[in-house]
Amino acid sequence: MKKSFIEVKENSHFPIQNLPYGVFCPKTSGTPRVGAAIGEFVLDLSVIEDAGLFNIPELQGKEIFNQPTLNAFMEMGRNVWSAVRKRMQTLLSEVEPTLRDNAALRKQAFYLQKEVEMLLPVDIGDYTDFYASKEHAMNVGMMFRGKENALMPNWLNLPVGYHGRASSIVVSGTDVRRPLGQMKPKESNNPTFGPSLRFDFELEMGWFIGPGNELGKPISVDEAENHIFGLALVNDWSARDIQAWEYQPLGPFLGKNFATSISPWIVPLEALEPFRTAGPKPEVEQLPYLQQSQKSSFDIQLEVHLKGEKMESPQRICESNFRHLYWSMAQQIAHHTVGGCNLRTGDLLASGTISGPTPEARGSLLELTWGGTEPLQMNNGEQRNWLEDGDELTLTAWCQGDGYRIGFGEVTGCVLPALEYSKA
Amino acid sequence: MKKSFIEVKENSHFPIQNLPYGVFCPKTSGTPRVGAAIGEFVLDLSVIEDAGLFNIPELQGKEIFNQPTLNAFMEMGRNVWSAVRKRMQTLLSEVEPTLRDNAALRKQAFYLQKEVEMLLPVDIGDYTDFYASKEHAMNVGMMFRGKENALMPNWLNLPVGYHGRASSIVVSGTDVRRPLGQMKPKESNNPTFGPSLRFDFELEMGWFIGPGNELGKPISVDEAENHIFGLALVNDWSARDIQAWEYQPLGPFLGKNFATSISPWIVPLEALEPFRTAGPKPEVEQLPYLQQSQKSSFDIQLEVHLKGEKMESPQRICESNFRHLYWSMAQQIAHHTVGGCNLRTGDLLASGTISGPTPEARGSLLELTWGGTEPLQMNNGEQRNWLEDGDELTLTAWCQGDGYRIGFGEVTGCVLPALEYSKA
Repeated sequence: MKKSFIEVKENSHFPIQNLPYGVFCPKTSGTPRVGAAIGEFVLDLSVIEDAGLFNIPELQGKEIFNQPTLNAFMEMGRNVWSAVRKRMQTLLSEVEPTLRDNAALRKQAFYLQKEVEMLLPVDIGDYTDFYASKEHAMNVGMMFRGKENALMPNWLNLPVGYHGRASSIVVSGTDVRRPLGQMKPKESNNPTFGPSLRFDFELEMGWFIGPGNELGKPISVDEAENHIFGLALVNDWSARDIQAWEYQPLGPFLGKNFATSISPWIVPLEALEPFRTAGPKPEVEQLPYLQQSQKSSFDIQLEVHLKGEKMESPQRICESNFRHLYWSMAQQIAHHTVGGCNLRTGDLLASGTISGPTPEARGSLLELTWGGTEPLQMNNGEQRNWLEDGDELTLTAWCQGDGYRIGFGEVTGCVLPALEYSKA
Repeated sequence: MKKSFIEVKENSHFPIQNLPYGVFCPKTSGTPRVGAAIGEFVLDLSVIEDAGLFNIPELQGKEIFNQPTLNAFMEMGRNVWSAVRKRMQTLLSEVEPTLRDNAALRKQAFYLQKEVEMLLPVDIGDYTDFYASKEHAMNVGMMFRGKENALMPNWLNLPVGYHGRASSIVVSGTDVRRPLGQMKPKESNNPTFGPSLRFDFELEMGWFIGPGNELGKPISVDEAENHIFGLALVNDWSARDIQAWEYQPLGPFLGKNFATSISPWIVPLEALEPFRTAGPKPEVEQLPYLQQSQKSSFDIQLEVHLKGEKMESPQRICESNFRHLYWSMAQQIAHHTVGGCNLRTGDLLASGTISGPTPEARGSLLELTWGGTEPLQMNNGEQRNWLEDGDELTLTAWCQGDGYRIGFGEVTGCVLPALEYSKA
C-alpha cells in the first residue's frame, strides 16, 4: 500500500490515496490558494506549482493553483486531474526525496490544517438539488400522502430535481441563522410570521461539474462521469413549516434558500474508484437515455452527529450510505442536460437527502422523528423533534478501505437564534 | 420636453428620457463594452469615461464602462446611477455643445444599433422566477384544478416564486432549440421520450439587482426599490408537456431550464418614475413585511408577436400590462430575503407570466389557446395551439408618455427543431 512520508493515522480521512482539494488561507497572513489534504496537513499546491514540480504540459506557464477558487483547475478535465493527482502521490510518497528531503521547500509547502482557514472552494454558478433516495421520497410521501400514494407517479421514471439557491451556499463552520418566514399552523385559518419552528438538516452529497456542456448539447449517461470533478458533503438546511406552506405549486423556495453548507474538501472521483458498486436495481424499465452500462454508485458511509449546547459530546443520530441512492450521479447529469440545459464549470449538483432502509438511516429530522411526533432521545436526557438554537450539526463520510479511509472530513454548522423582527 | 441633438422619432423606444444600458460589441471589431441606447444609436460609455466627461467622484480612476458586463456599475448603487443618468442627459441634450460640437468625439462615441452586436448585459448569479400575476395563476389553476380550486391557498398571502436556471439565460436573437424530454401522454401508462409537443412562451418582465444584501439580513419592502438597477423583458420558454410530468412535488425543472431569453437593454427604474401607478388592491390582509406605503407598480404596455415561417409579417397575439401584477417588485424582493436569503449584484428576478383581465391579455399560449383546445387563428390561415419549428416569437414593451415612449426594445427568438435522438 502506498505510504506518504507525512504521518497519516489509520482513521485519518486524508491518506495519500485520497488527496482531496480545497481552498485555504493561512490564519497568519496570505491570500487564498488551492491545497490538498494529507494527514493533518495541507499541501499548498501553489508552492508546488511555483517550484515547477508538476511537470505537466497543460499546466506550463499557467497559475492554476494560486487562485481563490478551484474553477480554473476544474475546467481542465479528467486527464489533467489525473496527471496532477499522480504527481502529488509521487511527490508525497515515502520513497521520493524531492519534497521529503528538501526542508526549505517542505516548510513552505505544508501547513497544519488547524493553522489555516478553509474557504468556499468553488465559484458555484448554479446549484441543483435532486430527490434521488427512494427511501427518503417514500418516508416524506407516507407522511404527506399516506402509504398508498407515497411515491409520485413520475418518481421511478426520472430523477426528480429542482434548482436551488447558489448565493447562500456556505462553507463548513459557518453559523446558520434560524429563518423567519410565513407558515400556516393547522389550527389557524391565516398564515403567521415568525421563526421557523421545524428547523431541519438534510444529509446529502454533492458533486461539482468540471468541464460543462454547450447549451443545447446533452451529456449522455455514459459520458456523464467525465464531467464530475469530485464530491463533497452537503447539508441542505430546511425550514419544514415555511416549506410546507409555500411549496405548492412551484417547489421549495424560502424553506431552503437561507443556507446550504458544504464541506471544504472535494474528493476526486478517481479516489473513489476502489469503492465503486452497483446501486439499487431499477424497479421499472428506464428510458434509454437513463440506462447505464456500468456500476455507478459508491460505497460511502455517512453519519450525522448532533451536539446541543448542554451536551458534553456530539451524539450520532443517523448512519446511512451513498449506495442507497436509487438514481446515480451519471443518471442525474444525463437527465439534467437531456433537454439542452447547459452545466458550467463549478456547478453543484446534490443528491437530496440520502436515507436508507433502516430507521437509523433516515437522513433528516423530518424522517427521524416522523414529522416531529417521535422525538429523538439525547444522551443528556434532552429530546429533539427539530433543531434548537445552539445545536451544532455535523455530517461526515468516508469509504472504508483495507487499513485506510477515503474521507470527506465534515460539514458542520451551528444554529443561531432567529433575528428579532419588528414588522410582524 | 428634453430633446437630444440625436434625432429620435416619436415612436422610438429610446428617447433622451429613457437611456437604457446594454453591453455591445461593434460588428467590425473591438471588445464588449457598456453603452446606452439613444434613438437608432448606441452611445459608447467607455468612450465618455475615457474622455473624462462624467465628472462623477465615484467614477474617478475606475474603468466602470470598459467592461464586458454591467455588474461593476450596478453595484455602485442608486446615487451613482442617478448621477450618470443626469450627466448622460446633459451630454446628449440639444443645447449642450460638449459632445454635439465635437465631431471627432462623436464619431468615436456613437454607433448605429444595427452595426453592433448586443450581448448578455449582466453576469447573472441567481435567477428567480415568481408567479405574481393573479390572472395567470387563475387561468392555469382553472385548467388544472377547476374554477373552485384555481388559486392555491397560499397565493394571496405570499408571492410564490422558485429558483430558475441562470446558465441558460440568453440574449434576444438567440435561437432556441425545442427540447427533448420525458412526458406522459394521458392515454399511456408509461412516459415517452421525444421533442416537446407543447412548446410555449411566457410574457414576463425581469429586474436586476444592484447592491445586494448580506446573508441573514433581509431587505424591507420600503427599501427594496433601492436595490433595483433596472428592468428588461423576459421570455421564459416552457415545454408544457415536460413540465406537467416532472413538476410534482419540487416544481418546474427541465420544462423551463433549456432557455430563458432577455432583452438586451435594461431600462433604469428612474426612467419609469412618470409611469408609477398603484397595483391591484390586496384582497386579503397582508402580513406586515409585505405591506407597502407607496404606489409600487408601473404602467408598462406589453405585446407579443408571432411570425411563422410561412407568414409574411408578425401577428400580435397578446396585449397585456405590467400594472396587472398582483405582487409588486418590492414585495417580491422583501419576500425573497425575509428568511435571510442574500441577493447579489446581477441577480435576475422575474415576474412570471403577466396576464391581464381580458382574453387577449393572456401571456402564454397555454392560456391563449386554453391548454391547446382553442387554436389561435393566424393571418395566413394557419392555426397555432403551440409554437412550431421556425416560429419567431417577439415580446415588446413601452410606457406611453406625452409625445415620447420609454421603451424596452424587444426580446426575440426563433424555434429550432429538436435534436435527432438515437437513444429513445
